[in-house]
This record gives sequence, structure tokens and C-alpha cells, in this order.
Amino acid sequence: MSLLVVGSVAFDSIETPKGKREKIIGGSANYACLAASNFIYSKMVGVVGKDYPEAIIRSMNEKGIDTSGLKIEDGDTFSWGCVYSEDFSERTTTFTHLNVFESFTPELDKLHSGSKYILLGNIHPELQMKVFKQLENPKIVACDTMNLWINTTLPQLKDILEKIDILLINDEEATMLSGNSNLSKSASIILEMGPKYVIIKKGVHGAIIFGEEFEFHVPAFPVDEVVDPTGAGDTFAGGFMSYIAMEDSSSKDHLKRAMVAGTILASFCVEDFGVERILNITAEDINNRLSKFSRMTMYDDTPFLK
Amino acid sequence: MSLLVVGSVAFDSIETPKGKREKIIGGSANYACLAASNFIYSKMVGVVGKDYPEAIIRSMNEKGIDTSGLKIEDGDTFSWGCVYSEDFSERTTTFTHLNVFESFTPELDKLHSGSKYILLGNIHPELQMKVFKQLENPKIVACDTMNLWINTTLPQLKDILEKIDILLINDEEATMLSGNSNLSKSASIILEMGPKYVIIKKGVHGAIIFGEEFEFHVPAFPVDEVVDPTGAGDTFAGGFMSYIAMEDSSSKDHLKRAMVAGTILASFCVEDFGVERILNITAEDINNRLSKFSRMTMYDDTPFLK
Repeated sequence: MSLLVVGSVAFDSIETPKGKREKIIGGSANYACLAASNFIYSKMVGVVGKDYPEAIIRSMNEKGIDTSGLKIEDGDTFSWGCVYSEDFSERTTTFTHLNVFESFTPELDKLHSGSKYILLGNIHPELQMKVFKQLENPKIVACDTMNLWINTTLPQLKDILEKIDILLINDEEATMLSGNSNLSKSASIILEMGPKYVIIKKGVHGAIIFGEEFEFHVPAFPVDEVVDPTGAGDTFAGGFMSYIAMEDSSSKDHLKRAMVAGTILASFCVEDFGVERILNITAEDINNRLSKFSRMTMYDDTPFLK
Repeated sequence: MSLLVVGSVAFDSIETPKGKREKIIGGSANYACLAASNFIYSKMVGVVGKDYPEAIIRSMNEKGIDTSGLKIEDGDTFSWGCVYSEDFSERTTTFTHLNVFESFTPELDKLHSGSKYILLGNIHPELQMKVFKQLENPKIVACDTMNLWINTTLPQLKDILEKIDILLINDEEATMLSGNSNLSKSASIILEMGPKYVIIKKGVHGAIIFGEEFEFHVPAFPVDEVVDPTGAGDTFAGGFMSYIAMEDSSSKDHLKRAMVAGTILASFCVEDFGVERILNITAEDINNRLSKFSRMTMYDDTPFLK
């Protein structure tokens, strides 16, 4: 099995309390595909400008990421800048240059349209729908979104929510979308909009997946030092969906393990700027962190009382 | 084994978005002993006025709570009022009448001073120290505190922290006490002050216990409707310490199970005003909730990759 990822490919300029980087590679598709490359073959659909280095595309290919769906168009690559507050609790966008991304219309060829597992990164819901309509026989379609689309394109967002299987969203956005700040209630309201599952990401407090008569909580994996949280959500999504694709199963037990896989991959992401850390994760790194996570979260669940 | 609980016994007047109650019983010792009564025999040390109903004391005794250490003094019982904000995120104290609590000096008789497991509820750190000095051969002493003592009696708080085994504290207070908002770092700083373990309570986001080379995370048990969060922290503390006392062990595995026990007992507490719900918890209630909690948090932790 493989994973199809549709999303942004970008140059990011990031300033955090730990330092500053200019024009490093970013975008949801890069983060998600790099996370996925630990488990499976992934296919990236997106657009870049002529200024995007070929060497980066080649290094993605070397990691088992198919980039035949990455269009290279005349113009500059989407670029974006941000600055984080002293405690990382707030992020302010300093600039957004859509460039070639402005007129992006994803077109899937045969290799892509037959995909079974699909991650629709955080792009305009109409583009997500365009991709969805080209899928021939998908098994699981997951979709990310953000406050911008909830505020400006709610009807189109609701259209795609009716089609997909899993929505990934953060806690503030869940409240915004549902009109309810209680996460369980918020999740019930979102599930009524269509998806079978909703994953609510709570940053340092972890994440919860909700479905019908089903919920599963994971804390975040605590890292010694957060350097840059950019892309952690996309890395989580890529790790989650690629684990599901690797198992070719969305059983409850596999969904739980996928939540843990996403959590662990995201923990590597925040340890360095951009994709620096997730470019080089070994199977041993992942298994070691799983074993540490297990000691932090698993317990003997035999009844307390006879 | 039994648990000694020293703390406040009070009349509370509480207003939450779900309703209002006047002069219901409260105080950290009541919550903690009621939680403990599910697992073991507990002994309450505190003070009330002549206005405190004997019927309530008798009903505590019927639950296996020894109240021989509850002084009944001339005057009125400590009383306190609060109002919660619409989303429960803020609590404002409306009045505090210390009454007989103002001149409270805990004196332990032989039954109490020989206790092995002790919970020092959230009272003045000098009173906590007075109790500590009367203990003959304690195995585990846990202690709660609050922002008031961090702000006004920090040297006395630090004195008791050097003596005790486990500090229970919420996330805001941990930041205040340590000067660091990163919970892991905050925990390290607090552990250097003396306790072997620190439990940081994060409200709806659960709790974490930190020790040397040890940490364990539990989410909160999600309830359908929060009615009144008052006493949830004391209920957690009572559940946690009474489980440890019941097992007569503070091994890592038992500490983990104690965190889960505290979480589950606290989840009952918030479902009704004051102690209403925790007055009547059955072994079946607890075991059912543990089994539900296990489905929400446990996963297959075999390595992801070969």
C-alpha cells in the first residue's frame, strides 16, 4: 500500500525563541511525505516554482517519495514566514506569498487516482473536493483544515466533510467549527457533519480521536527542547495515515497505534527547524521512542476492586 | 493499611453554569476521605464548629472514615463561596470565613501519629509541618498546596517540600513555584526542592507524575457533563493516596495505577455538586470506568518496524 498526499510545498522563513531560519523547505506535503517515508511509499501532489531546488526533489525520491505529481511551473514557489512568541503559545504570520500556489489545480494521473489511502493537506476545501472527485476507489480519505477555511469557506468545507473519512483539526478550530468548547461535544457535532472519525490535536496536551462509540487519547511525547513546532500537525497526519496504509487496515486497534505513530513522528519534527530532524529518522529511533512512550502511558488495567 | 488525611472541613456555597448550592459540605479532608473510603479505612484530622451537623459526621463513620481527629470547637465552621465562569475555566472566590479554622492547630493522638500513609491537604505549610513533625514513622507523605502559599509563605512551603515524598500541584501553580512554564522542566526544578515525586494536575488535560527517570501521563476521564469541579483535585489526591495505602506499595507500577485511580475517582466528583456523587460510588462503578478508561488509553505497543 502507499499514501497519496496532496498539499502545499513551500519555502518557510521561521523565527522561534531558539533561532531563525530563512527560506527553508516546508509545506504540508513535504512534512507529511517525510513522515510517511518511515512506513511506506508515498506520492506527493503539489506545485512549486522554477526556483525550487532539484536537489531537494531528488532527495525526496531517494526516500521513496514519488514526486511525479509535483508540478513545476513558471514563477516562484509559495513562501511564507512566521514568528513564535517566547513560550511558543502564539504564532504570527509575517508574510504569505502564494505565487504559483495561487492558481494550483491538482490533477491526478492514473498512478494517483487509484490510490486507496489519501491525505488531503490543509488547502482550500474546493481543491480538496477536486482531488476527491478524481479518486476512483478510495479506502480512507483524511483531510486537514484550518481557521481560515472555517471562517471564509464554510459551505465548501462542509461539502468535503460529507465525503471524507477522517478530519484532523486542532482544538481551537474544533471549537470554531462546532460552536462548542467541550471537546467531546465538539467532536459529536463534527461527526454529524460527515466524517467517521475526527482527530482533535491539542499541541502539548496530545490528541484525541473520536468516532461512533469510540475515543482514544494520547499525550504528546515530551521532548527535551522544542525548537520549532512548524509542521508538527502535518507530520502527525503523515505518520498517522501512512501507518494505516502500511497496515492496510483502519480497525480500532490500528487507529490507536496510528495515533501513537503520529505522536512519535511529530515529536521528532519539533526538535529542529523545518524538516531538519525528520529528514533522518531511523527505525531504531522510532522503536526506541515507542518503548519510552509505552513506559509513560501504559499501566496494569486489572480491576482495582474485587 | 489506612490513610491519614489532614485538611479543611467546610461549608461551601457554589455557583456554576449548571446551578447553585448554598452551604453544602466541602473541604479537602471531606473530599479526600470520601474518595479513600472506596479503597481503605481513612482517618480525618480537621476542625469544625458547633454548627456542623452530627448526621454528616455519622455518615462519614459509616463509610469507614474515622473522625476521632475531627475537633468540634465553639464557633462556626469554615465557610467559603465561589462562582465559576461560563466555560468553567475561571473560578472566583466570593467569600472566605475562616471561623474556627483560623486558630486550627492539628494535634495527632497515638492512632494518628503512627500512620504510614499521610495526605496533607491544602492548608498553611506551617500546619503541614506541625503534622509532619508528629509523625513517628511515615512511609509516604503527600502534600497539596496552592497559589496563596506559593505567594505568601514560600520559605515555609520550601521547608515542608524538603520533608515530603509527593507534591500534588496544578500546572499554573507548578509554573509559579518553579518559574518555568515547560512542565517537564518545571517538574525537575520542583523535584530538586525535595519531593521524590511531583504530580502536576492539568484539569481537563489530565495529570502527569514525574520522578527521577520516571514520568507517567494520564488524560482526564471524559464525563458527559461537568456540573461542579470543586474538590476534583482533593478527590484525585484521596484516590491516589488511598490506592497506594491499600497496596502498601509505592512501586512505579502501583504509582501508575494510583494515577488512574485518582483520575477515575475525580471524574465522579465533577458530575454533581460538592460531594453528592462521591458519597455513593460502588466498586462496580469504579471497575466499569476503569475498563472504559483502559479502552480509551491502552494500545498494542509492539514495535512499529522490524
